[in-house]
Amino acid sequence: MDDRRENREAMPAGPVALFGIPWDRNASFLRGASLGPGRIREALHSGSSNLCTEAGQDLSRDPRWRDLGDLDLDGEKEPLKRVEEEVTRILSRGFRLLSLGGDHSITYPILRAYSRTFPELTVLQLDAHPDLYDELDGNPFSHACPFSRIMEEGRISRLVQVGVRSITPHQIEQARRFGVEVVAMQDWHMRRDLKLTGALYLSLDLDVLDPAFAPGTSHNEPGGFTSREVLGIVQGLKVPLVGADIVELNPLRDPTGITAMLAAKLLKEILGRMLEEM
Amino acid sequence: MDDRRENREAMPAGPVALFGIPWDRNASFLRGASLGPGRIREALHSGSSNLCTEAGQDLSRDPRWRDLGDLDLDGEKEPLKRVEEEVTRILSRGFRLLSLGGDHSITYPILRAYSRTFPELTVLQLDAHPDLYDELDGNPFSHACPFSRIMEEGRISRLVQVGVRSITPHQIEQARRFGVEVVAMQDWHMRRDLKLTGALYLSLDLDVLDPAFAPGTSHNEPGGFTSREVLGIVQGLKVPLVGADIVELNPLRDPTGITAMLAAKLLKEILGRMLEEM
Amino acid sequence: MDDRRENREAMPAGPVALFGIPWDRNASFLRGASLGPGRIREALHSGSSNLCTEAGQDLSRDPRWRDLGDLDLDGEKEPLKRVEEEVTRILSRGFRLLSLGGDHSITYPILRAYSRTFPELTVLQLDAHPDLYDELDGNPFSHACPFSRIMEEGRISRLVQVGVRSITPHQIEQARRFGVEVVAMQDWHMRRDLKLTGALYLSLDLDVLDPAFAPGTSHNEPGGFTSREVLGIVQGLKVPLVGADIVELNPLRDPTGITAMLAAKLLKEILGRMLEEM
Amino acid sequence: MDDRRENREAMPAGPVALFGIPWDRNASFLRGASLGPGRIREALHSGSSNLCTEAGQDLSRDPRWRDLGDLDLDGEKEPLKRVEEEVTRILSRGFRLLSLGGDHSITYPILRAYSRTFPELTVLQLDAHPDLYDELDGNPFSHACPFSRIMEEGRISRLVQVGVRSITPHQIEQARRFGVEVVAMQDWHMRRDLKLTGALYLSLDLDVLDPAFAPGTSHNEPGGFTSREVLGIVQGLKVPLVGADIVELNPLRDPTGITAMLAAKLLKEILGRMLEEM
Amino acid sequence: MDDRRENREAMPAGPVALFGIPWDRNASFLRGASLGPGRIREALHSGSSNLCTEAGQDLSRDPRWRDLGDLDLDGEKEPLKRVEEEVTRILSRGFRLLSLGGDHSITYPILRAYSRTFPELTVLQLDAHPDLYDELDGNPFSHACPFSRIMEEGRISRLVQVGVRSITPHQIEQARRFGVEVVAMQDWHMRRDLKLTGALYLSLDLDVLDPAFAPGTSHNEPGGFTSREVLGIVQGLKVPLVGADIVELNPLRDPTGITAMLAAKLLKEILGRMLEEM
Amino acid sequence: MDDRRENREAMPAGPVALFGIPWDRNASFLRGASLGPGRIREALHSGSSNLCTEAGQDLSRDPRWRDLGDLDLDGEKEPLKRVEEEVTRILSRGFRLLSLGGDHSITYPILRAYSRTFPELTVLQLDAHPDLYDELDGNPFSHACPFSRIMEEGRISRLVQVGVRSITPHQIEQARRFGVEVVAMQDWHMRRDLKLTGALYLSLDLDVLDPAFAPGTSHNEPGGFTSREVLGIVQGLKVPLVGADIVELNPLRDPTGITAMLAAKLLKEILGRMLEEM
Repeated sequence: MDDRRENREAMPAGPVALFGIPWDRNASFLRGASLGPGRIREALHSGSSNLCTEAGQDLSRDPRWRDLGDLDLDGEKEPLKRVEEEVTRILSRGFRLLSLGGDHSITYPILRAYSRTFPELTVLQLDAHPDLYDELDGNPFSHACPFSRIMEEGRISRLVQVGVRSITPHQIEQARRFGVEVVAMQDWHMRRDLKLTGALYLSLDLDVLDPAFAPGTSHNEPGGFTSREVLGIVQGLKVPLVGADIVELNPLRDPTGITAMLAAKLLKEILGRMLEEM
Repeated sequence: MDDRRENREAMPAGPVALFGIPWDRNASFLRGASLGPGRIREALHSGSSNLCTEAGQDLSRDPRWRDLGDLDLDGEKEPLKRVEEEVTRILSRGFRLLSLGGDHSITYPILRAYSRTFPELTVLQLDAHPDLYDELDGNPFSHACPFSRIMEEGRISRLVQVGVRSITPHQIEQARRFGVEVVAMQDWHMRRDLKLTGALYLSLDLDVLDPAFAPGTSHNEPGGFTSREVLGIVQGLKVPLVGADIVELNPLRDPTGITAMLAAKLLKEILGRMLEEM
Repeated sequence: MDDRRENREAMPAGPVALFGIPWDRNASFLRGASLGPGRIREALHSGSSNLCTEAGQDLSRDPRWRDLGDLDLDGEKEPLKRVEEEVTRILSRGFRLLSLGGDHSITYPILRAYSRTFPELTVLQLDAHPDLYDELDGNPFSHACPFSRIMEEGRISRLVQVGVRSITPHQIEQARRFGVEVVAMQDWHMRRDLKLTGALYLSLDLDVLDPAFAPGTSHNEPGGFTSREVLGIVQGLKVPLVGADIVELNPLRDPTGITAMLAAKLLKEILGRMLEEM
Repeated sequence: MDDRRENREAMPAGPVALFGIPWDRNASFLRGASLGPGRIREALHSGSSNLCTEAGQDLSRDPRWRDLGDLDLDGEKEPLKRVEEEVTRILSRGFRLLSLGGDHSITYPILRAYSRTFPELTVLQLDAHPDLYDELDGNPFSHACPFSRIMEEGRISRLVQVGVRSITPHQIEQARRFGVEVVAMQDWHMRRDLKLTGALYLSLDLDVLDPAFAPGTSHNEPGGFTSREVLGIVQGLKVPLVGADIVELNPLRDPTGITAMLAAKLLKEILGRMLEEM
Repeated sequence: MDDRRENREAMPAGPVALFGIPWDRNASFLRGASLGPGRIREALHSGSSNLCTEAGQDLSRDPRWRDLGDLDLDGEKEPLKRVEEEVTRILSRGFRLLSLGGDHSITYPILRAYSRTFPELTVLQLDAHPDLYDELDGNPFSHACPFSRIMEEGRISRLVQVGVRSITPHQIEQARRFGVEVVAMQDWHMRRDLKLTGALYLSLDLDVLDPAFAPGTSHNEPGGFTSREVLGIVQGLKVPLVGADIVELNPLRDPTGITAMLAAKLLKEILGRMLEEM
Repeated sequence: MDDRRENREAMPAGPVALFGIPWDRNASFLRGASLGPGRIREALHSGSSNLCTEAGQDLSRDPRWRDLGDLDLDGEKEPLKRVEEEVTRILSRGFRLLSLGGDHSITYPILRAYSRTFPELTVLQLDAHPDLYDELDGNPFSHACPFSRIMEEGRISRLVQVGVRSITPHQIEQARRFGVEVVAMQDWHMRRDLKLTGALYLSLDLDVLDPAFAPGTSHNEPGGFTSREVLGIVQGLKVPLVGADIVELNPLRDPTGITAMLAAKLLKEILGRMLEEM
């Protein structure tokens, strides 16, 4: 936990907390996602834009959210357990969480914590990959596996995956086994109504976007969404959004910084959407 | 005024003039837009394409337009006034103008000049931002302010802004006050018929495009148009196009040059469209 | 130990052969396309993705295709003739071919060879340019000319060009003369049903994609297809696909490698589509 | 002041403090230097290296320094005055300071504060430019002017500039007037012995390095030092180093991040050198 | 048609073999080094240069070397063992080896094989890091460890490391324990005579070069050699060079390809130097 | 000839003329050098530096030179002949020329023209390559051949080549035949005194610099000069400099613009040196 911790404790609980989890040790191919939270904040506060949502909501003047800084996991022996504890503690203080990854492995401990407060959660996962491997390279906590762990443990009511365009026979089998609803990218135009109900958690892997819009991810998978389409999905949500994460920004692959800018924009819209609930 | 000036004077007046205004002192964040006109011309004449429009109109053989070169504003004490005088002079010789910026602050003096020749002008502004600040960092002529100045002075009949996706409460108020028609990016698909009539001036800020298509702007704002959508808007105009500008190319942010290539392509289509009027 | 060659000779003939033609001497502007086949294979086998199609077909376990490696044209006096002979020989062994360029000039000898086996071929050319120049800079075999040669010799039944957005009066005249069906990019949304019938050959010039998605081509032409649209065209083909090429990847213009990744993705989908025929 | 402030107050005083001043409003050409402190810390803690100096001194286990975080200057009316106050306060707690800019204008208030504690200071400025303009674009506090202010006020005993390779007649005159010792880049090989004595403050503008080594600066000036040469200057200092700053990292011009990596490396060597004094 | 294999078997054994080992699973931070051999060959054969050494030796006409292609390690359970076996086999055919990595972990099995043929080998390691960790992240075969394994097993007579500029107390201790001669980068100018004798193996980690010259490595460590200095070291070797490797090219960090070009240049000079022995 | 032509005629003759020759049709590998003159001027006038030499000579106030703009060679049937005529005409007006390429083929016609005014010329060629091919790809006027043409015709007294590090047996033979003095890069440190006498012409191919300093050339050849070394050679010239060219800037390979900045810096130093003569 870095120096911002005390701060986090001392201030009165507000409804939405921004929280960075700079962790990339479960990445299977490239590291770099641990630099994500820092770069997203940099883009958020850079002089090139402002803190308003597209609808003109000025987040800089909104007292209902705060930035709790980053969780320091260096040298941590059980980092995922630590994430779970920390998220549990933040939820217990009445916050809803918008977490910034980090690789996608962090969603598993986040949802473990969430499942205790929100036992009937629907999760909308925007992702080029189902992340449903049973294990990868011998690691059951790889960023390719979190949703297998979540489904095995029965943590959530429903998992809807949108934007998938790289899936293996093994993962097709896993999806069938767990009852995951997979909306392949190529079918998106025909299945836009996801019939979501109840409390929603949004897990946004930036590689759901086409590499033209988001080159800064470790696994560039062409054929993805435009930035406008993802903004449209967020802005069009009609159910209560009780939590979210934005994961897999890899600044080492983002030479011009457009992926960080996009992540910051999505952050603003998601935050705006979460605050609407209140 | 550079060495091409004499030339400009001596030749018989033609109907459309290309004109560069390499000015970026009113940029609020990054300089570099002054390099725009040079790079757009370079892309236009590079060996990688030709001078034909998409409809096959060969501009290299069309005698009805000419390139007047760049306006030299170095050391100029009242640069915006100088722009206005120069544009007035060119209009008086019978030209319609296609100006290449430069930051967006140049549109204010251009439209002051235009308003005397075309008192009932409709302006279509393609832009991620409304540029309606009353002032920014104490500068009322900032590139974030030109349309406040234009509307205050009542220079034009109608201002339609398309593609806006970053707006503050202050600017929403300004738009209301001046009667500006703002078509937000997220509403574009529902409001494509702009019901334009009469003589039109097109002010194209390249940041209306998504940074995936146009990274070379000072204020990357994700969620914008595709290149095809902007080409479609230009090609679909049904009213007389009497003037245009292409602004905010920042070559310092365009490492692969795709933004300059896109600006050159848009230039060809706009020029082709302007020549159709005749 | 690289064992491509042994394979090639010893294994029983399979239905689809991947074949690289690293040739760029007929490029008119930039060289670099000769590096294409190597980079596409690199992306195909990189640790960032897998060998499954979007429909979950696992090509890594499919015995019905093989990679024949690259044709070495260094020092070859009549390279295009050599391509024709080699393609003829591969076809005679029962393969259907998926060739990786190289510049677009290689499609001429490939189709000469194909025309003997498939005399009633329809060719679908996805390209920003018609490549119908009679000659360019004095070279009748330039990458700007292959379809003039093919049409003159009456090698195919029908040529349909989709995505064209840079055409000259000379090429419009050539298209008319040869009966080429040109679907301009701006008309694509109205003419999506191409009414294809019979055996089809797909020639995919990567510059049909917008430079945002495929910066790594020698002639960036803005206003092109998204990656999703091209994937949709491939996935939607309803006629037998008997051959294909992917040309004009220029790695010297692809600093982040997204064009190579996209070419590899298209390769997988085209290969999957070709194998469906069997 | 950000959330780390309290922390800063509460902990016992240690001998060297790392301190970020993310300020770039006095830059004359490009903004971006305000992103410097964040990127340098990121590089310092990235998984690609460790916290040891070249001599094997492990800074991660050294209790004699700490990171005080960044000074928040957003909305500050008199930012330079604020810097001076803050530096004064830190010095009064017994720290020696290693500041991370920010543009070079921050060195003026830092040295005002230092001059009260160290009235006989020698300043070694490594820089491509003398920064001795009387004013630039009407701004006497521009990043092109700090050393004029410092010398006018007689704050230091001696100013030695090394690496200068862009100087105007006006600045030559200023240097003469103030008795600044300018060692031009082209003369460095003949004047390596700077005959430094007494307490030293090092002001390191990253543009003293050649753009090949440090592209990430706002004013690339070719012909500069190699990274090895600058490391050698730092490692070879034989007088007590009582303070230092590293300024002008502009991450917007550092696509591959090598400048940030170099800044972090220099930070480690300077910090190691400062700790040797104790 | 790729004819590397035929060559390999049919031609009489020649003295030097080029051999690719595309392996990066032992990298601790970033993957990508497995793309190294492909990119180095691409650069070697690209149209931008030729196959002559700086002394004018034309390698394209020299029958005394051949390219054995790449070792396929996909799915290999004991990859390092496989490398050792393959190198042993190649050595037994009378070749001396110039291997292309891959991460630096491959040097361990290569030297195990070499040590049987050359029991009195001196190894000159050009590297920014000593690679003497006992283990890293629990992996004793990490690319940070090969020289600990080699020294523990007593495989070589002498290990000289040149260019080291990132070393930890643990590694200083390891070097002392194993009697490794470490020439730190900062001392190079004073210790250029390495007093090499007997048969030499050169292990060249590209990160020994400064990131300005070789950005394409996973661990950019500023303050390194210029390309000229490394060429000078190779060209100045006076003892028999019986083997070499060039490792750690990471093309994912080499957007402009200059590191691959440099690796290819070094390959030519090393190869030329190895052929001189004969 | 572009619009600046008249200007060129009308103004009184001054001693040094800057002259752009945007020509790249004789490049053997990549085009792009035709964009060179534009980019060098852009860098020269950009807001990031000024027009002073390193010695503080202010070129912006020096009336003894002027910029004659670019020679328009589009559609020219005999472009090299045209260059020769134009240079002859400019020389006849009393100017000394500093030409900006363009590929290196332009030096042949420039020196043909120079040889009539300066029959005893020494040429100092800074270049990674000798450019002494008899022909390349059938083109005797290729950018790889100009010095063969010049030497065959006996146009100059002496040709000294410095920085050569890519030479073929054929070119070694050509150098011998023509009496060219080749100072290989690896021998430079031992042969710095070139014993130049009489009138000198400097032909500076930017690829003489290492790609770290000048990535923006078509033929990156590692192992070259630092920017400081080339500046040192120019600043150290002790004979009258009567003409010069700077060639082979390829902006398509210069994503961060540092090569253009370096070319502009070299231009200033060469121009300053040429003006000293007067």
